[in-house]
This record gives sequence, C-alpha cells and structure tokens, in this order.
Amino acid sequence: MYTTKYHIHTAKETPSETEIISHQLMIKSGMIRKLAGGIYNIMPIGLRVLRKIEQIVREEMTNSGAIEILMPIVQPAELWQESRRIEEYGPELLRFKDRHNRNFVLQPTSEEVISDIARNEIYSYKQLPLTFYHIQTKFRDEVRPRFGMLRSREFIMKDAYSFDVDEENALKSYHVMFKTYSKIFRKMSLNFCAVSADTGSIGGTYSHEFHVLAETGEDTIAYDKNSDYAANLELAAAPCLLDKRLCAEKKITLIPTPETTTCEKLSEFLQIPITKTIKSIVLASESDNVINIFLLLIRGDHSLNEVKAKKILGIDNYRFATSNEIEEYFNCPPGYIGPINTAKPVCVVADTTVANMSDFVCGANQKNAHYIGVNWSINLKEPDIIADIRNVVEGDPLPNGNGYFSLQKGIEVGHIFFLGTKYSQDLRASFLNKSGEKEYLQMGCYGIGITRIMAAAIEQNNDALGIIWPKSIAPFEVVICPIGWKNDNVKNIAIQIYNMLKAHNIDVILDDRNTRPGIMFAEWDLIGIPCRINIGPKDLEHNLIEIKIRKSPNESIKIPIESASQELIKILNNL
Amino acid sequence: MYTTKYHIHTAKETPSETEIISHQLMIKSGMIRKLAGGIYNIMPIGLRVLRKIEQIVREEMTNSGAIEILMPIVQPAELWQESRRIEEYGPELLRFKDRHNRNFVLQPTSEEVISDIARNEIYSYKQLPLTFYHIQTKFRDEVRPRFGMLRSREFIMKDAYSFDVDEENALKSYHVMFKTYSKIFRKMSLNFCAVSADTGSIGGTYSHEFHVLAETGEDTIAYDKNSDYAANLELAAAPCLLDKRLCAEKKITLIPTPETTTCEKLSEFLQIPITKTIKSIVLASESDNVINIFLLLIRGDHSLNEVKAKKILGIDNYRFATSNEIEEYFNCPPGYIGPINTAKPVCVVADTTVANMSDFVCGANQKNAHYIGVNWSINLKEPDIIADIRNVVEGDPLPNGNGYFSLQKGIEVGHIFFLGTKYSQDLRASFLNKSGEKEYLQMGCYGIGITRIMAAAIEQNNDALGIIWPKSIAPFEVVICPIGWKNDNVKNIAIQIYNMLKAHNIDVILDDRNTRPGIMFAEWDLIGIPCRINIGPKDLEHNLIEIKIRKSPNESIKIPIESASQELIKILNNL
Repeated sequence: MYTTKYHIHTAKETPSETEIISHQLMIKSGMIRKLAGGIYNIMPIGLRVLRKIEQIVREEMTNSGAIEILMPIVQPAELWQESRRIEEYGPELLRFKDRHNRNFVLQPTSEEVISDIARNEIYSYKQLPLTFYHIQTKFRDEVRPRFGMLRSREFIMKDAYSFDVDEENALKSYHVMFKTYSKIFRKMSLNFCAVSADTGSIGGTYSHEFHVLAETGEDTIAYDKNSDYAANLELAAAPCLLDKRLCAEKKITLIPTPETTTCEKLSEFLQIPITKTIKSIVLASESDNVINIFLLLIRGDHSLNEVKAKKILGIDNYRFATSNEIEEYFNCPPGYIGPINTAKPVCVVADTTVANMSDFVCGANQKNAHYIGVNWSINLKEPDIIADIRNVVEGDPLPNGNGYFSLQKGIEVGHIFFLGTKYSQDLRASFLNKSGEKEYLQMGCYGIGITRIMAAAIEQNNDALGIIWPKSIAPFEVVICPIGWKNDNVKNIAIQIYNMLKAHNIDVILDDRNTRPGIMFAEWDLIGIPCRINIGPKDLEHNLIEIKIRKSPNESIKIPIESASQELIKILNNL
Repeated sequence: MYTTKYHIHTAKETPSETEIISHQLMIKSGMIRKLAGGIYNIMPIGLRVLRKIEQIVREEMTNSGAIEILMPIVQPAELWQESRRIEEYGPELLRFKDRHNRNFVLQPTSEEVISDIARNEIYSYKQLPLTFYHIQTKFRDEVRPRFGMLRSREFIMKDAYSFDVDEENALKSYHVMFKTYSKIFRKMSLNFCAVSADTGSIGGTYSHEFHVLAETGEDTIAYDKNSDYAANLELAAAPCLLDKRLCAEKKITLIPTPETTTCEKLSEFLQIPITKTIKSIVLASESDNVINIFLLLIRGDHSLNEVKAKKILGIDNYRFATSNEIEEYFNCPPGYIGPINTAKPVCVVADTTVANMSDFVCGANQKNAHYIGVNWSINLKEPDIIADIRNVVEGDPLPNGNGYFSLQKGIEVGHIFFLGTKYSQDLRASFLNKSGEKEYLQMGCYGIGITRIMAAAIEQNNDALGIIWPKSIAPFEVVICPIGWKNDNVKNIAIQIYNMLKAHNIDVILDDRNTRPGIMFAEWDLIGIPCRINIGPKDLEHNLIEIKIRKSPNESIKIPIESASQELIKILNNL
C-alpha cells in the first residue's frame, strides 16, 4: 500500500467530547468518525484493525470446533416475548414496527434466535455437542453513549452459543471456550485476565469475564499475584477480618462529634484507628406497597458492594433510602445514623467483619454525636443478618487462605456464561436423549466485543505520542518513511525494501506523500505502527537505514541495507 | 472438515411458500432458515458461499484501488432530510425513533453517509480520485418480501462511492468500476451481461446493470449476439419499423367485430396481419387537480414500455385510466377504443412505428366495432406526440443498424451509477480545485448484492438433483464420500485423500457419518459440491476411486489411487 493511494487523515487537535484516551486517539488517528451519538463510521485505518481482530477470533473459534453462521440484526419481537426478555431488557433494547405494524427489535444479543434455530435444527443427542457463532453488528440504545467504541450503541460482537446433552458436557464446552478466549487474547498480545463474574441480565449460573488490563479500566479486578485466582470486584468474596469477637472492654459513651459525618473524620477527631469505626448505609426496598428499610453496616475503611447487597434476601430490588425515609426511621440526619435506638424498627445487616467487632464506634442517631465503646449483645441486639456485603481491599486474605488479594483495573472485552436450560426451556428447544426421551438443551453463551477490543487495546497500549499497536492487530506492521521522496536514491531504496517486505507477506505501507519528516513521523507514531523504517540520504551515504520500534520511542537501530532483509525479519519476529 | 464436526441439515421435501427454485434449493440444502418474512438466518453451508462471494468482491475492489470502510446500519434521519430522500424513498425505508425520540433509519444504501464523510474528509483536489466501499447489512422494508434471498428485507450489499474533480474523471472512475464488476462476475464463473439501465430512484444520469443470465430472471435484457451492445428492456431503444409512411390505398370503413377485444383476435377475425392493427392504451396523469388523459398507440404485436412512457412530458406521474374515465373520454368500453371521434379531447401519443403506419385497423369507440383502412391526416389528425413507447422485440434492428436485437432473461446483481453532483450539492460536499475554488464533488455509486448473488447463481446453475455451484463460490470444492466408513481400508484411503487435498489448499469435506451411499450422494448433489470422490470397497479392489463432476451427473471417472493426487488436481483445475 502506498499512502497516496490510501486515505490517511489524522488530526493534531484533541477532539472535544472525548473523555477517554482511546476515544481521543481513535479520532485523532482517523480510525473512526462520529455519525451520531454512539454511532461511528469505521474509517480505513480502523477497519484494518477491526478485520485483524475478527480474523483472529474467527480462526480460534474455528479451531475450537465452533461453526460460523450469520443471524439477522432485525429480529421478530415474538421470540423476545417467548424468553420474556422483551420486558426484562428495558429501553436499551431498540424496538420498532415494520410497515405492516409487526414488532421487531435490533439485536443486542442472539440467545432467542439461536434457541429458535436449535429447536428447528437439533433433534438428537447424536448432533451434540454443537457450538454456533456469528460475528455481527449489535445495537444497544445506551441512555448516554460515550467513551467512543467502549460504549457505543452500534457495535460488532462475536457471540457463540453451545448446546449439550447435560450439564457435565455443557461445562466441558464452557471450558473449551474459556481456553479459546485465552488463546484469542494471547494471540492479540493483550495483557488480560479471566475473572469469575456475576451473571447479570443474561442469566445462568456460572460465568467468567475476560478483561484487558488498563489503568483507565472501568472495572476492578481482585486477584492473587501468585495463582490463577481472579474475580470481578463485584463478586470477589471478602473474608471476615476478625476470627473471633473479642470480649467487651469499654462502656458505651455518647460523645459529641460536631461536623464529623465520615468515618475518616471520626477516626481523626477521636484519635482512634478507622478500623474501630462503623459506616451505616440505609437502603429501602419496596414490594406490594410495603417499604422495608435496611441498615447496612460495614467497617469504616470498607466500601459497600452493591451486587452482593442485592443478593441478600429481600434487598434484590433495593434503592438508597430517601432523606424523608431516613428522618422517619432514624429521626436523625445522615452522617450520625447508627443501629442503636432507631426511631422505627429496621433490619440490621452487618458485614461479617462488623459482626465480630467489639468496643466499636457508630452513629448515635443524634445530630453531631457518636457512641464509642459499643458492643453487640450488650448495647444492641445481634444483627438480623450477617453477610459479606463489602468490597475486597488490597491485602485482604484470599478465600482459600493461601495468599492475599491485589487489585487492578480492567476493561471487559469478553464474557462467557453457562446458561443451563434458562433459554431452552422458555423457547422449548429440546432433543431426544439416548433413551429416546425429550430433554431441554443445556446451553452456554460466549461474547467477545470486537469493536470494544479496538478501544481496550488502545487504553492498554498508548503513550504521549499516540497508540502503540500490538503487531497482530496493528493497521500495518511496518511503515516505510522516505526522507525526501523526490530524492531518487531514497525513493529507490524505499521501494526496494517495500517490495522485499511484501514478498515476505509483511503488511507494510510506504509513505510517498513527500511530507516533512517531523510531520510524517508524528503522524505514524500517532497511528501507532509497531515498526517504522526511516530512509534518509545521510544514512544512505553509509549504506544504512534506521529502524524505530514504536514501543521504544527513544531508541533507534541502524542496519546495513545489504542485510536489511534478514535483520528486519528478525526484528519483526521479536516484536 | 469432517461432516460429524459440522452441521449439515438438508430436507427432502420442497418447502411450502417457495415460489422460485433458488429459494427452494437454499432451504432444502440447509443454506438459509427463515426467521421472519424476508429475514433469514444464514446457516453454515450458506455462510461459506457468502464469504467466498465477499472475498472475491473485496479482492477485486481492492485491486481497483477502492478503499474499504464500514458505515453504520443505523443512520440519523437528518442526513436523509438533507438529500430529501426521506420523502422520496417511501415506506421501504425503515424509520424509527431511539429512546430519546430522535429519528433514525436502517440504511438501504449509504449515499447520504458517504457524502457526510466526504464533506468532512475531502478538502483538496490532491486527495482525488477516491473511491470508498463497504460490505454491510442493508434493510429494505419490502411490502411483500418473497423469492428468498432474491428479494429479502435484510440483505448484504457491497456499495462503493467514487469522488472526482470533474465529470471526465468521474466517468473514468465509473469505467474502472465497470471493468471491476466484469472481473468479479467472471471470477465467480457466472454467465452475466452488463446492460445500459434506467437510473430510477438513486438518480444520476448514466447507469449500467449487471445481470446474471437465467431463464427464471425477472428482468429482460435486449442484446446483440454479435457485439457488446446490451440494454435493459426498460431502456433499449425500439426502432421505427417503417422507414416511410406509405400512401393511403384504402378507405375508412366501420366493421362489426363482436367479442373482438384484442389485436390477436382482431387479426384472426379480419384475416389481416397483426402488424396492421393498433393497440390503444389509456393513461391518466393528475397534477394540481387537473386530470390529463393520454391515448397511447402501439402496433398490435408490440407491448407498452412504461419506463419510456413515464419519460414523456406530462406522463411522468401516470397511472392507468379508470373505467369511469374511459367511459367519460371515449364513451366506449375497453377493447374498442381508438383515436377517432373520442367523446372528449385526449392527447394522442403514437409509437414511432405507429406514426408511419397506413391503412391500419383501430378501435371505433363503439362496442363491438373497429375501423379498417384508417390513415393519418385523412381520417384523423396527426398524433400529438410521436415517441418510442414500446418494448423492443426479438429481431428488431439495433439502434446503430448493425444487427438485430435478441432477448434473454436476467437477474440484476450489480448496478453502477454516475451521479454527478446530485448528492454532493444537497449535502454540500465540496473540495478546493487547482485554482483554489470551491467545487462540488463529482460522484458515482456502485452496488453489488452479495446475498442476491447466492440466489442468482443458483437460478443459473441447477438441475433436477439440486444446486450446481461454480467452483469459486461453492461451499466446498470437493466432497469425499466413503462407501462404508466402518471399512478400515475405505476409511484409510478416504483420510489419505482428504489430507492430500488439504495439503494442496483444496476446500474439501469428508462425509464420515456412515450414511447409506444413495442418501449421501443425493444430499451432496442437492448441496451442489462441484466434485465428489466416491471411495468404495469394490473400486478399491482394483485400486480405483470414482470421481463425479456435479455438472455432468451421468458421467463418472475412475482414477487409480497411485495417481489420484495429480489426476484430481488436473480435474479440479479444469472445473
């Protein structure tokens, strides 16, 4: 490819409305162009990356035995009624009517359609196991699309669906996908992590997320540095940090604590460790017009884990209490709330660590006052519920006791679910087993965000100059930058090296626009080509060409033209 | 690929609701499955064909210098307002609102979006020529989707758009696409024809259609057997078949013609050549609440060409007249209408041949009566308009006089348009020319129906047994059918030949399902694999294997196992 026959269009200015680096760099480098909120044109440079990602996914899916199909973007709403997701999905599911007033949706995923295919195509255990996948455009009508390709409305996803005779075999298929996903992200040279995850709105009973690690990630991963253990913070089991509850040594005392509404302030004000304080959080849950109020207690230095709180019986449909409700049940403003002497009875849920604390400090349900020296059973009754409701923190012991949690940020790019018969029952997708009896298919579903990977890879791999593509998904592996295209010697050597690389099947672009070197170099560093070859008259006097490796921008290598072929291949193989 | 690791699911019964052979065969062979009216799942066998078609298109588009991008399926309605196609397109354009009540459409084509890209990306003549293309899902809300993939609602199209500095260069780009399309269809081994075409709703001034020739085609192509000349019947210029008008020899006479409402019956009843009769067609056109009635006259053996009629001034918005209107203007039932003594004045439009006829026969505007011996100027005034308004028939002289028209049926699979500045003006897509002045971009647009080609190729290539795929787009090039998979010798030779073909990069599938030979053969003949290798114990006794070429189902070739490799490669190269 010669640049003048291609379309390179970069920008120097940082575009407005871009909150994150991948969005900025994708626009600046000319990979994408906004068409509407959350809807982007993928421009030539971007499409090359997209196609390489797709190809890696396709190859490994095929290697795993999965079979590619293509399910439509426009799907009849009837199927979504059968699965009842038409109600569950909410306004992210874009619905519309066709000219005959029939109801359709734009697919966000294809569980319903694949179940419909399965009930028509699969009839015998002899056809199983079977995994279908497709790489197809999806649409989710996000309320506030932002972050470019990380949270767009129209995007491309690979979604796969496995069908098995029983749970044991379904878990085998799940495991095959787990390994396949790991291979896919390794092939893309992405630093990633597979973590246990919550099943969320897709449903099912068992799931893993695949995260590309990046400081800018929106998810937190709790992991062990010395083993495979990793979980989404939402799910990572927080241990009780106190083996036993110690005997009470202090007496309860009301202490004035003016303007001391946080545990941090309280610890400083009282000159006690924050681990002696308790944070109170008030949740409300309504059902059948009855409002239940829950007082959740976590240690002062901990934070509430809402996913865990949701799982506690009765709080699966919770919201934070209103200030009126707090006034009514505690007769006290937020900041001084506690479990002792509430105005009305509430259900007290203590985190496992809190349940073993003694001589602790908590709000007194009076403005500008706390109790110190509080003890369970002595000053208040035992908690109604004891449960893990907090987020793990760095240094917490692992659930198995062999090590400690570390935390890191990640961007979810893949998610695999064991679904069981959730969809096959609703859509009546069954098969005849060995004994000739009808059974529901055991299913799994497996997604990879193709366009999301483009953004996640950039979040992980960038510097002040621009993107640093891993070679396997770079728009081009090599760019040749002739310094002075009108100099015949420079031009001839550039073309000679271009042809040599082409002959070795290397994906190379030659910049024949005759722009000034500084501008040209900055442009390719922004676009992030892994290897740049500078060919200039000064180096040529010594029969040398210069190699710049994008990820080491301060280094350069000069190699003799005679051995350019072998040297370059060696350098590229090591990239 | 081994069949047991794949998903083959054919049907013996002809599916109901399938009116044409390609639709039947695509369902029977398991290529597609209906999801909703005009919306199909593309199943594994079908997707292999689709991807091969896509790949050929992509390669040739790239060779032509076009640059691939990806424009979204969901497009903001504002752009369609700018081009005014939002009103012009009618209900085939699927419109919907997002959760914020903003208007969107599902793209049927992308002229608006590419013009929006162009106005943001193209600023200088130095960037031109430039051709972008994408291969993307389209949606057209057909009022009555049918014919399977020939007229589906969701389908895949390659659409390309060229940008040039002036008309001369735009026509060069047009010509490059013309050649590229020819290469594409040749590479697919399809028997096709490029024809001059009407520009229809896309607009523009110059266009060609590419048709796959098939007896079942919905379009008629008028062509010359001895030259490149070909045109859609809609557009093919019909010559005047009478050089000069001969002098009147007969006198006008009213003849009773009971129950003689067609020219065929009239010619038989009066024992005169049909070429002496005139057919009368009454059209109406309304504008500003004024109804104009047109009487179109064509020779008795000719048929009206509505596209040509539409182009006549004042009839571009025509409809056929109602029986009330006919009664009012002719005071006579249909079947006996003519240009003489109409009840009210009408505009008489004579076809060029009719205008030179003499001593002809026409309706008398009285039930059960015609005039014979009618002559222009003598019995009625000269026609108000003389124009080519008929369809060409087999044997008509070509417009250039060097030969005669032949007719054949075709299926449109590609269409190229020279657009000029139609879209660039409406969307203000301009560039600075060499003199630094702003000019509108000269555009062309070029479509290929990717999913449509699947169906068209089948319409052209099938027999009583099923599909006969051209090798280049077959789901597999070769199928190996072991007769008795449980026979070790058969199995070993089958695997050996499979591995040999794989090593030669031949796309081969091995049927390891151990089904009975008759069923197995019928299934692969239905699916249409170009070459079948039968490996059976009887042939193996003589060290032979059998080759069946799908397009010659009555022949078979036996080749020795020792030379199987060379022989097979030779056979495949000649397919």
